[in-house]
Amino acid sequence: MSKPLKIALAGLGTVGVGTLTLLSAQAKLLEQRCGRPLRVTAVSARDRGRDRGVDLSPYRWFDDAVEMASEADADVVVELIGGSDGPAKALTEAAIHAGRHVVTANKAMIALHGPALAAAAEGAGLTLAYEAAVAGAVPVIRAIREGLAANRIGRLHGILNGTCNYILTTMRETGRSFDDVLSEAQRLGYAEADPSFDIDGIDTAHKLAILASLAFGTRIDFADAFVDGIRRITATDIAFASELGYRIKLLGTAEACEGGLQLRVHPAMVPVNAPIASVEGVLNAVECESDFAGTTMLEGRGAGAGPTASAVVGDLIDIALGRTTPVYGVPVGRLAQLPVVPMKCHIGPYYVRLMVYDKPGVFADVAAILRDHEISMEAVIQRSRSTTEPVPVVLTTHETPEAAMNGALSAIAALKAVAEPPHMIRIEPIEAARR
Amino acid sequence: MSKPLKIALAGLGTVGVGTLTLLSAQAKLLEQRCGRPLRVTAVSARDRGRDRGVDLSPYRWFDDAVEMASEADADVVVELIGGSDGPAKALTEAAIHAGRHVVTANKAMIALHGPALAAAAEGAGLTLAYEAAVAGAVPVIRAIREGLAANRIGRLHGILNGTCNYILTTMRETGRSFDDVLSEAQRLGYAEADPSFDIDGIDTAHKLAILASLAFGTRIDFADAFVDGIRRITATDIAFASELGYRIKLLGTAEACEGGLQLRVHPAMVPVNAPIASVEGVLNAVECESDFAGTTMLEGRGAGAGPTASAVVGDLIDIALGRTTPVYGVPVGRLAQLPVVPMKCHIGPYYVRLMVYDKPGVFADVAAILRDHEISMEAVIQRSRSTTEPVPVVLTTHETPEAAMNGALSAIAALKAVAEPPHMIRIEPIEAARR
Repeated sequence: MSKPLKIALAGLGTVGVGTLTLLSAQAKLLEQRCGRPLRVTAVSARDRGRDRGVDLSPYRWFDDAVEMASEADADVVVELIGGSDGPAKALTEAAIHAGRHVVTANKAMIALHGPALAAAAEGAGLTLAYEAAVAGAVPVIRAIREGLAANRIGRLHGILNGTCNYILTTMRETGRSFDDVLSEAQRLGYAEADPSFDIDGIDTAHKLAILASLAFGTRIDFADAFVDGIRRITATDIAFASELGYRIKLLGTAEACEGGLQLRVHPAMVPVNAPIASVEGVLNAVECESDFAGTTMLEGRGAGAGPTASAVVGDLIDIALGRTTPVYGVPVGRLAQLPVVPMKCHIGPYYVRLMVYDKPGVFADVAAILRDHEISMEAVIQRSRSTTEPVPVVLTTHETPEAAMNGALSAIAALKAVAEPPHMIRIEPIEAARR
Repeated sequence: MSKPLKIALAGLGTVGVGTLTLLSAQAKLLEQRCGRPLRVTAVSARDRGRDRGVDLSPYRWFDDAVEMASEADADVVVELIGGSDGPAKALTEAAIHAGRHVVTANKAMIALHGPALAAAAEGAGLTLAYEAAVAGAVPVIRAIREGLAANRIGRLHGILNGTCNYILTTMRETGRSFDDVLSEAQRLGYAEADPSFDIDGIDTAHKLAILASLAFGTRIDFADAFVDGIRRITATDIAFASELGYRIKLLGTAEACEGGLQLRVHPAMVPVNAPIASVEGVLNAVECESDFAGTTMLEGRGAGAGPTASAVVGDLIDIALGRTTPVYGVPVGRLAQLPVVPMKCHIGPYYVRLMVYDKPGVFADVAAILRDHEISMEAVIQRSRSTTEPVPVVLTTHETPEAAMNGALSAIAALKAVAEPPHMIRIEPIEAARR
C-alpha cells in the first residue's frame, strides 16, 4: 500500500467533527479510491476538554493551530476555523510556508485574501482548495473551473445562503412575518444568534466574489460588490410577488457587462417557472450561462456537517491523487482586474411597493413622477381600500436604469399621500423556460 | 510557450464541427487556461467533399479514422463517430495501442465496452475521457467521480434523453398525442428519422449504465438493465398524472438494494414539486443521493453541437493540464461486479389506467383481483361516463411488489368489461420537498 496522505485538522466545530466522522466512516472506500489511506495525524481547537462525541486520542493535539500548521507531521492542513483573518489566515500562511497543501471551507478568507494566498501556494507548488467554501456539497467550484473550462461564462447567479432561503421559503408558505420566521429559524438552529452575516447578504457576497473570480478569471475587490439583504422583505411583498408570477430569492449575481463586471447581492423577483425559483428551504443552487454549454444549474445542500465534510474530503482526494488545478483555473498572476460597475448603472425591471393614503390624485402624482424620470410602467395593483389607514399599492416597471429609479423613488417618497419610504425589489427576468 | 496538445479528431457531424468551432473560437482562452495551445492536427470523416461550413485545410485529412488514430501526429484522439462497435471502437483501440489519450462522446461504446477500453488505457497510462457521453454540457461525470468522491451514493436517477423529455413536455403543455408530437419533433430536428433508440429508452439506458458504473464502482452488464420507453404514454395518462399531482418523465434509475443494484429505465410519475419534475423540454438532469452530501442535482443541455463540444473540450483541458483520474474513479481492475436485481423484485406505488365498459360490478371485480394479489389501493378516479364506449378508470396503489402487480394486471386484462390491456406507469416517490 502506498504512503498515507497525512492530515492536520484545525477547528473542531460542526464541520470539523463532521470531517473526522466522514474520514473514519469511509476510510476503506477512500483508501480504495485514492490508492492510499487518508490519515488524520493532528488536530487543534480552542478547547481540548469539550466532549464532541468523537475520540480524539489517536491524533496529536495542538493548542495552537498556527503551530500545528508548521509543526505537525502532515501533508495537508485542513482549515475549519473560519473568519477572514486571525488564526485561520495565519495558519493557512504558516501551512503554505511549511510546504503543506491547504484545504479550507472559509469563504470570507478566500473572498478577501484568496489571490494573495493562491500566489503563495502556487509559488510553492502547493494546492489551496476551497470547494467547501461555496454551496457546501454542491461541486460548483470544480464545475466552473473544470467542467465548464471550455466556455466563456457570461453570467452566473445563485442562491448561496441557506438561512435566507429558508426564511423566504417559510414566509411564502406560511404568510408569516420576517421577524417571526427569523426567530423560529434561530430556535431551530438554521440562523445564528447574530444573523446579520447571513440576512444582510455578506455571506452570499463572499461566495459570489469567489465564484466571480473563477468564472471571469479576475481579481475581485470585495468592497466593490453591491450588497443588500432580506430584512425589509414583508409578507405583503411575498404575496404580491406570487400574484405577479414571481418568487423572491436572495440572489448573488455576477455578469460581464460593458465596462467590466456586475457584482450584486440583493433580493430579486424571479419568474416562478424559472428553475431557480423552485430551489426552496435551506437548499443552495448556482446557475451559469456560458457561450457553448448554455445554462447549467447545480443544486444541493449548502451547509451542515455532512455536506461540508463531503466537499472538504473531495478536495483531500484530489490532493491524494495528485490531481492539481490552479486555484482560480489560471495561475493567479494571470488573473485580470476587471472593474466592478457601480449599481447605479444597473438596468432592469423593478417592483415598487408604496404605502399610500387612498386619496384621489395619488396615482396621477406617482405616474407623473415616473414619466418625468422616463420610467415605463408595466402594471399597477391596488387590492385593498381604506379611508383611514395607508394601503399597499404595487407597481412594476419595464427595463429602467437604476439611477432613474432612485430619482423617482426619492420624489415619490416626498409625496404627502405616501406614508413610508417606497420599497423597491429588483425583478430578475431569468429565462423562464430554458428549452 | 509550452508544447501544444495535438489533437486528431474523428467524425465531422454536428458535434465534430462544433468541437472544431469551439477550439478555434476559444483558442486564446484555452491556451491561457491550459498554459499551452490545443491544436487540431488531423481530422477524419466519411466524406471529404461535404461542405461543413468550416475550413479543414489546416488539418491533415485521413479517409480512414482508424489509420489516423495510429498514424496522425497527435497526443489525443477525439472520437465523435458514434456507435458501440465498428470504426469508433476500432479507432479507440488503435489510439490506445499507439499511446494516445482518447476523448469520446460515445455513450453506447462506453456502456458496452467501457471496462475493456479502460483496462487498455489504464494499462498504458493513458486517459479515456467521456464527459460528453452523458448529459452533454452538464459535468455529471466529474461531479460523481470527483465532486462526490467522498460519498457512498445510494441512488441516482436522471432525465438523460432530451428527445423524450421534449415529447413528454410538449404533450403535457398542448394535450396532443404522442404520435403527433413525435412527428413535430422529427420535423424540428429534435428526433431522428428512426427515433427508436431515443423513445424506446436505449439511449437513456446506455447513459444510466455509465453513471451506475461510476457511482457504484461496478461493472454493469448492459443486458441486465430493465428498459421501457415512452411509446405507450397517452394524452390521457398525462392529464391524469397532472390531476394526481405528478409529471411523467422518462427516468433512468440506479439504486443500491439488497442483493445488488436496481437498474431501470421507464416512464415514471414524479411528484410535481420534486425538483426533477420541473426539468422540461430538451434539458437533462441527474440527481444523486449520497450519504454525506445528501441530494445533489445537476441540470442543463444534454445534446447539441455547443453543449457536447463544451464537454469534449473540458476533457481535452484535463489532458493538457495532466489532470488524470481513473476512468471509473477507481482502477478498472478493482471494479466490483454487483448483480442487477430483476425488475420483478421492484417495489413501489403504481398508476394503472384501464379502459372499461361502464357496467355495474366492474369496480368490484377489479377490487377483488387487487385484494387477491394483496395490493392496497390508494385512489380510484373515473371522470367520464359512456354507455357505449370504454371510459378511462385510473387507480393508484400503495407500495406493491412488481410481481404482484403483473399478476393482477393479467387477471384484470382478462375481465370482459376491460376493453384493452391495462396501462401501468410506475410512481417514483422522490422526496418532494428536500429541505
